[in-house]
Amino acid sequence: MVVALDAMGGDHGPEVTVSAALEAVSSGDLAIALVGDSEAVMPVLAEHDAVDHPLLQVVPSDGVVEETDNPAMVFRSKPRASIFVCSGLVKMGKAHAFVSMGSTGASIAAATVTYGTMEGISRGCLGGPIIGYAPNTVIIDLGANIDIRPQQLAGFGTLGTVMSRVLYGQENPRLALLNVGSEETKGNELVKGTAELLRDSSLNFVGMIEPYDLPLGKAEVVICDGFVGNIVLKLTEGLGQAISNHVRKKGGNDALADEIDSMTNSLAIHGGGPLLGVNGIAVVGHGAAGASGVSTAINTAKFVYDNDFVGAQQKELTAFLANAS
Amino acid sequence: MVVALDAMGGDHGPEVTVSAALEAVSSGDLAIALVGDSEAVMPVLAEHDAVDHPLLQVVPSDGVVEETDNPAMVFRSKPRASIFVCSGLVKMGKAHAFVSMGSTGASIAAATVTYGTMEGISRGCLGGPIIGYAPNTVIIDLGANIDIRPQQLAGFGTLGTVMSRVLYGQENPRLALLNVGSEETKGNELVKGTAELLRDSSLNFVGMIEPYDLPLGKAEVVICDGFVGNIVLKLTEGLGQAISNHVRKKGGNDALADEIDSMTNSLAIHGGGPLLGVNGIAVVGHGAAGASGVSTAINTAKFVYDNDFVGAQQKELTAFLANAS
Repeated sequence: MVVALDAMGGDHGPEVTVSAALEAVSSGDLAIALVGDSEAVMPVLAEHDAVDHPLLQVVPSDGVVEETDNPAMVFRSKPRASIFVCSGLVKMGKAHAFVSMGSTGASIAAATVTYGTMEGISRGCLGGPIIGYAPNTVIIDLGANIDIRPQQLAGFGTLGTVMSRVLYGQENPRLALLNVGSEETKGNELVKGTAELLRDSSLNFVGMIEPYDLPLGKAEVVICDGFVGNIVLKLTEGLGQAISNHVRKKGGNDALADEIDSMTNSLAIHGGGPLLGVNGIAVVGHGAAGASGVSTAINTAKFVYDNDFVGAQQKELTAFLANAS
Repeated sequence: MVVALDAMGGDHGPEVTVSAALEAVSSGDLAIALVGDSEAVMPVLAEHDAVDHPLLQVVPSDGVVEETDNPAMVFRSKPRASIFVCSGLVKMGKAHAFVSMGSTGASIAAATVTYGTMEGISRGCLGGPIIGYAPNTVIIDLGANIDIRPQQLAGFGTLGTVMSRVLYGQENPRLALLNVGSEETKGNELVKGTAELLRDSSLNFVGMIEPYDLPLGKAEVVICDGFVGNIVLKLTEGLGQAISNHVRKKGGNDALADEIDSMTNSLAIHGGGPLLGVNGIAVVGHGAAGASGVSTAINTAKFVYDNDFVGAQQKELTAFLANAS
């Protein structure tokens, strides 16, 4: 298996990505295409005495997508940026997956355009366990799909169910809709419409879940639109930090404060993961990740490749749509 | 001033509401109409030797709206329920405000129908400081208005600005839109449309605020639709509880855990408040409130009456709409 690694992406660039690549190929069961500006990547490879490593290949690119670039527009101005060369390698069959710690928006755009999306899904979406107190609860979507319709949100339920099974080992994950009340008469039009679609499906839909219950792990898959999911992710982090500061000051207990931080910091809990709903493998990670975080992301790409994560999503989605129509 | 008090509302009913009424009238500057089933209210009044209290009057009602009733439908089946008798007293000019700890949905429905809403507002809305770490940050709407348009959300900005000035003493409150990014290109259609309306207004609009910054008090008024606001309220409570349990177990520090609870429990921080956007005074409180909580709610009704809170909202909203058109 060949992984195209965006060597320029992330806060630290080649210094970190090249180290991570060396770590990942040490097992001998995958090869890596290091995609980046040659003058940035080659010196770091030389430092590691790895210019001629048999499992590493440098593929030149030109420039990098910045967080300030508009993901939807940047391909026109920077078509040779590292992330687009990565997805291009997969398109040409020269790699089986790409991994990037760079702009999440650009990764989603690249994967969506290059791989195409699954039926009923209009854009790759993001999910993962982001509240440390509920380590088996995958929340989807975390911010990729902002204005959506019930059909799409129900689709996230199927993708999340597959994610929970394949990546988190849950046999029959409970699927819940994030809502402002437990009754099915409550909620916005999106939630009510989605509940109708899920009720008749073969998914293990257990109804509404209120935010009170998110940290209690009452469902393994929780779905919401990307606006709400991103609010949940960022409020968890912000409130966690406010409380850990409180504990640091009033309790004088730094170890406990650190524990609270790690339970509410999405990077610590879930450094990144595979995009869902696209017909190919793209693993996006947090920009701040260090070498071990990048190496974990590369291993995730290999794991989802070996376990046919993409095929499992397609199959489940097809079954859901056949049942719904 | 006469306050119509829903004596049946709340988890504790007349036992608590009658005590609170006695406490509130002890100042001598307001009278209370105790609205409730006579056989429930009179014995409690008798216990307190207050059957002939000159500032208390019992107004009979029949039944009470339960949390399980559908707020939009319950008026047909229980037209003589205490909350509707309360709003009716205000409508007839026999009281100047109503106060209820009962079903929030029924209070909103009663106030919306009886008082009518202000221009551009379709339903009474709820706001208040719900994160203890940011005691001067009013968040609106907390759950009354689920599916809304930019014009309405911008209206909440004007109402919140008045609330922050009148109730929380902020001279020139900063107004921010809750969003998933700080850039104005990010967000859903609702947020983007609202930003356009606010940018040209005379309000002190400071742009987007991300949930990270909610506990840091970076704005005095934060607006969002009622779905998102209710998610924020309930996640704050649920996550706060998960963390305080963590502190109780690992830190063994019960006092600190209690402090965390009180900073994240919306009842403790903000037991209730006046409905915004309706042409009259309605104060809704938390069902679990004890006598002092109910008494505070009654005093809030008097405060907003004395300070012409309703008139101030109407004036600000008219100015906003004149400027926007």
